[in-house]
Amino acid sequence: MKAQIITIGDELLIGQTVDTNSAWMGSELSSLGFDVCRRISIHDLRLDILDVLAEVSGKSDVVLITGGLGPTSDDITKQTLCEFFKTKLVTDHEVLDMIEEMYKQRNWPMNENNRRQAEVPEACRVLKNRAGTAPGIWFEKDKTIFVSMPGVPHEMKHIMNEHILPELKKRFSSQAIIHKNIMTYGIGEASLAEILTGFEETLPKELKLAYLPASGIIKLRLTATGQDKRYLNTIMTEQIKKLYTTIPELIFAEDEESFEMVIGNLLKENGKTISTAESCTGGRIASMLTSIPGSSQYFKGSVIAYDNSIKTDVLGVSQEILEKFGAVSRETVEKMAEGARSLLKTDYAVATSGIAGPDGGNELKPVGTVCIAVSSPSGTISEKRRFGNERIANINRFSIAALHLVWRQITCQ
Amino acid sequence: MKAQIITIGDELLIGQTVDTNSAWMGSELSSLGFDVCRRISIHDLRLDILDVLAEVSGKSDVVLITGGLGPTSDDITKQTLCEFFKTKLVTDHEVLDMIEEMYKQRNWPMNENNRRQAEVPEACRVLKNRAGTAPGIWFEKDKTIFVSMPGVPHEMKHIMNEHILPELKKRFSSQAIIHKNIMTYGIGEASLAEILTGFEETLPKELKLAYLPASGIIKLRLTATGQDKRYLNTIMTEQIKKLYTTIPELIFAEDEESFEMVIGNLLKENGKTISTAESCTGGRIASMLTSIPGSSQYFKGSVIAYDNSIKTDVLGVSQEILEKFGAVSRETVEKMAEGARSLLKTDYAVATSGIAGPDGGNELKPVGTVCIAVSSPSGTISEKRRFGNERIANINRFSIAALHLVWRQITCQ
Repeated sequence: MKAQIITIGDELLIGQTVDTNSAWMGSELSSLGFDVCRRISIHDLRLDILDVLAEVSGKSDVVLITGGLGPTSDDITKQTLCEFFKTKLVTDHEVLDMIEEMYKQRNWPMNENNRRQAEVPEACRVLKNRAGTAPGIWFEKDKTIFVSMPGVPHEMKHIMNEHILPELKKRFSSQAIIHKNIMTYGIGEASLAEILTGFEETLPKELKLAYLPASGIIKLRLTATGQDKRYLNTIMTEQIKKLYTTIPELIFAEDEESFEMVIGNLLKENGKTISTAESCTGGRIASMLTSIPGSSQYFKGSVIAYDNSIKTDVLGVSQEILEKFGAVSRETVEKMAEGARSLLKTDYAVATSGIAGPDGGNELKPVGTVCIAVSSPSGTISEKRRFGNERIANINRFSIAALHLVWRQITCQ
Repeated sequence: MKAQIITIGDELLIGQTVDTNSAWMGSELSSLGFDVCRRISIHDLRLDILDVLAEVSGKSDVVLITGGLGPTSDDITKQTLCEFFKTKLVTDHEVLDMIEEMYKQRNWPMNENNRRQAEVPEACRVLKNRAGTAPGIWFEKDKTIFVSMPGVPHEMKHIMNEHILPELKKRFSSQAIIHKNIMTYGIGEASLAEILTGFEETLPKELKLAYLPASGIIKLRLTATGQDKRYLNTIMTEQIKKLYTTIPELIFAEDEESFEMVIGNLLKENGKTISTAESCTGGRIASMLTSIPGSSQYFKGSVIAYDNSIKTDVLGVSQEILEKFGAVSRETVEKMAEGARSLLKTDYAVATSGIAGPDGGNELKPVGTVCIAVSSPSGTISEKRRFGNERIANINRFSIAALHLVWRQITCQ
């Protein structure tokens, strides 16, 4: 069960639009058990479209195509499909009625371009689009199903959900695929791979392991492929269990959960609150925590103390500590966390101070150095860490390291 | 001048990762005058990689490849490139030294997998990667340049900026291309396009205008293509001037400058400082301001007052105002801005309070409502605005709207 995805549009190639359609379609096809073996983006050009259609024909069971079905002169997918499938455009009166009705309801004037949206290839099956004007177009040739959809994401999703996914599910239900993600933190990709050598070598043949690192977090993705979904579920559960016993201290979540989600859930469950006192991360940690819907239940606020005067005047860090240990020190961040916890009246407070770069480093405290503290009802803990040279990457890594320390403190790992 | 982009990784095909690398590389290649004619994503599978390399070979001047250079067993790009280019892996001692130095600095243990990162194809040119451990790999065959890079976005960008883009610029410079971006804010894409109809119709034939909208900011990109660079520069300057007279109040910067950069430069020039008092934006504005290197010169700090108690206890908003007008009101944000300005002792302070969603809205103040205030030596101004329903998009748009108000106040537009 192979599938390919073709996205058509100049805007994708010159990088004006990030191709989120492919990701969404890939995810849906995978969950039906398809192996999405290739994704191709091409220009809105007749010859490029004809070339790619000839290439993929007969090589996959399904080819999903988006883009180029709009009403303007640069949209040529429909005409080119007619050429490839040796048919011609005819007006579909049901589609035309739908479009006319839509324009009437919204009180929009209707022109020749809009009416042309109801023209479809004579030899295709028409998939109605209640989210827009361009219908989906379904062809079959050389044992390959070709479906062409508009590139507007919500229209594509509507046609996929309404017509394509149910039909594919009915017709292709032989092979099953299960994905499971385990989120880890605290060790580099190479070292993690070393620890997991034995685990990987003894994986059942139906299972595949992939490492997906991002800002210090490594997502381990297990994929099971086979005929028997129940069996796949069983071996998946077994292997996940094995993973938990192999690297218990490194796993912080499953699937796509982030530290801010996990921490949010833990705080909500326990009825606890949190605040931040940020120097080098400049509000990034607060911003991550508040990106989660409902975070106002446990996040109360922050003091961003970029300037030392705010560390002393607002957070109450003493001048002595700042002078003796410096702003980037475990002593200072501990006092910052305690100050925030008391000022903002929260159960937990996390503080950071470091050198994100590109300037400000010295031999003792080079760019990439960060001190982190977490203050909580059971006391204050802190650590000093060292990352790289790139400012934005550092701010991200500092923030994730800080959230990791919060998570450790809450779960007492 | 044709280019193709190949991204390797199962995560791209099953839609776990959105392929932002392709968009970035496509945009950079286009700006050098390359026609990016195809983008392909494939599995981490030897045969798939060999197939696609054979397909693209000789068909483009440049092929950029990302992904599969990591240290784990699912990363097979390097070995497969060796097979395709008929060469073998050898240890590059300069790269090994760099990796060892990096691990020493960070106090990380080094293992066999890390050392293997220094293995490179014998016949390739090695592009050093100071942002990570996997170097870039440059091959030439059949008049096609192949460059393989790690898939981690900041490492890929580092290698592109440091090595690939300068080299491509040197070698492919037959036709001149000039890009110029004009950054606008304050009006929708359709309305802006309507205002600029006349401007667009009278553009010299060498010039093309594109609209690139993101979070309320619309970047107008003018591209001039031709043989005579001096002439292109002349007509570009003329048209930019015309644009400034057509939409003077909408332009806030040129090229890729963001509000946080423009504001940072203005504050530095005038020796002024800024702070923030954020409710619904939860630290996002502070995070944007401090993403700029050197921002400690003008950014002093923030109070994030998610909880009303922090608005009253720390920022000094009176209980009467909160009760009479509500947390999401111009009155409240004005007091928040004034409170932050006085507590944090800055020249400017910007405050936000709103409903990012998905919950918390009501008929009078629906999700997407935000109030913004800026307090400055010349007084306090505020506005109430309304955006969409999506939380993350709202937080971004609120923050940009707030920075826009700061910019207007500093420049008194």
